[in-house]
Amino acid sequence: MKQAFVTGAAGFIGSNLVDRLLSMGIKVVGWDNFSTGQEQFLASAKKNPLFSLKFGDNLDLPSLITGMAGCDIVFHLAANADVRFGIHHPRKDLEQNTIATFQVLEAARLNEIKKIVFSSTGSVYGESEIIPTPENAPFPLQTSLYGASKVAGEALIQAFGEGFGMQAYIFRFVSIVGERYTHGHIFDFYKQLSTNPEQLTILGDGTQKKSYLYIHDCIDAILHTIELFKTKSATHHTQIYNLGTPEFIQVNDSVNIICKALAINPKLIHTGGKRGWVGDNPFIFLDTKKINLTGWKPKLTIEQGIIKTLDWLKANPWVYESRN
Amino acid sequence: MKQAFVTGAAGFIGSNLVDRLLSMGIKVVGWDNFSTGQEQFLASAKKNPLFSLKFGDNLDLPSLITGMAGCDIVFHLAANADVRFGIHHPRKDLEQNTIATFQVLEAARLNEIKKIVFSSTGSVYGESEIIPTPENAPFPLQTSLYGASKVAGEALIQAFGEGFGMQAYIFRFVSIVGERYTHGHIFDFYKQLSTNPEQLTILGDGTQKKSYLYIHDCIDAILHTIELFKTKSATHHTQIYNLGTPEFIQVNDSVNIICKALAINPKLIHTGGKRGWVGDNPFIFLDTKKINLTGWKPKLTIEQGIIKTLDWLKANPWVYESRN
Repeated sequence: MKQAFVTGAAGFIGSNLVDRLLSMGIKVVGWDNFSTGQEQFLASAKKNPLFSLKFGDNLDLPSLITGMAGCDIVFHLAANADVRFGIHHPRKDLEQNTIATFQVLEAARLNEIKKIVFSSTGSVYGESEIIPTPENAPFPLQTSLYGASKVAGEALIQAFGEGFGMQAYIFRFVSIVGERYTHGHIFDFYKQLSTNPEQLTILGDGTQKKSYLYIHDCIDAILHTIELFKTKSATHHTQIYNLGTPEFIQVNDSVNIICKALAINPKLIHTGGKRGWVGDNPFIFLDTKKINLTGWKPKLTIEQGIIKTLDWLKANPWVYESRN
Repeated sequence: MKQAFVTGAAGFIGSNLVDRLLSMGIKVVGWDNFSTGQEQFLASAKKNPLFSLKFGDNLDLPSLITGMAGCDIVFHLAANADVRFGIHHPRKDLEQNTIATFQVLEAARLNEIKKIVFSSTGSVYGESEIIPTPENAPFPLQTSLYGASKVAGEALIQAFGEGFGMQAYIFRFVSIVGERYTHGHIFDFYKQLSTNPEQLTILGDGTQKKSYLYIHDCIDAILHTIELFKTKSATHHTQIYNLGTPEFIQVNDSVNIICKALAINPKLIHTGGKRGWVGDNPFIFLDTKKINLTGWKPKLTIEQGIIKTLDWLKANPWVYESRN
């Protein structure tokens, strides 16, 4: 790994990865269309001579091809990560997750880049009947346009891996939390509570069970896996790993952690129902034995991750402004 | 089912379905861009007042929307079915299978059509370790761009089904054979043998194991399943069924059936290797217990299906001309 191309470089996960790669002395080309990315997340990276930032869109193949020139690995993290509003704009997931992934693969192929890392999601398992859900769970049924677009992206990564001999890594994440977290329930709850600490509206009945992984644990896992396959031989060109914590919590538990950390006691209003929205999965919990067996384990618990996230949101109120 | 919209209406499976629906007294709107479809396959349909033919492309959403108006079911059969040449033109499968499926779903949604049938493929299982492969086999890894594009299509069908309350039927086919068969190994072998009955080149070592289903058995299964869910209640909006025969044969066995039927004894030249091409699956055999338990079984064996196909190819040499 000498020069890395990072799509979604100005995003939550992307910018943290950029900083990490730079700290390891790796050259990084950051790529972002700034539709949701924050230039401020790259403030430190931009001071580093190993870093160059390219403004570009994944749907613009020619720019993507030239942007990637000289790189030997692609971290494809750019995505529409808004699971909730899929049915409000069905084309968005297709374009930003499926077609964009195809474009990134095409640009990598044309640049003869043989290593690609893809950030997928536990949502690809739909509503699995096996919980915790392992990588080889039964062929799932997709329940959201987001999940559908990510499973399509995964399939493209795999087919390019096999067809063109690319070494591909697919990581299926639970929700990631931590510094630079800019969407999801902690983000929404903190926003509500900043405006009115007396009251909190919770989508669904709050019993939805979810799992959260701290951003630096997530990045550790990715880099650990790539390192592993420098020496390990593999049957397939594509390696697939779940990334998560060995625990899950209910949304209501998360609310308690947040309220305790903020030392407030708001009135809780549940909108009701098992699901927060159409396509919301009432129970996401991934089996992470496969990656654990390779020696990686998360350092932070879910509670610690949530508190780190809150601390960062408290210190960075500007992210709420920038999202309006 | 009062008025059906059939994409790929001039194709192998599409035109046979059109004829069947018309024979049942159902109005049919046939849709095809004639990239591989044959107008001649619709010669009989075109004489039927219940049939109307619309020339159109699935990538042209406005035409698709108006074309579908008034229909209450969509049979989405149009696809790039050429599994073999995926890596020669990676974008083709994405456009014609994944994006096209999205467009068809969007047009159905905007027309408030609540029933959709999708022709998928056993290729979505990649190289499954479980053979015969059931519908709930382990989450597969895609080995071809074709498989990837179809799994993406399936995922979209499922997500639209859940998100917009469409009743969706996904059928994962083995190779279909019979009247109007215009691509695949029987097509290629018969072409070679018509030119030179002394010699036959076989891709791979000929031990690839595959399964074949006769076109009318395939259509029976589809219509049988739709009928079934008129009364049966279901947990999900999407129903998934493998379609195939309870047997498989080797490519070499198929060669023997063909040579015996043609009463010839050519020299066989194997190109060698377990796979006929990059992404070729050396063993495709689907578990069809799920559909069998609902009361459907194929009427023809693989051998009978191959002979029907040969008879049709012999009687219709023009299809070779039209494919050049």
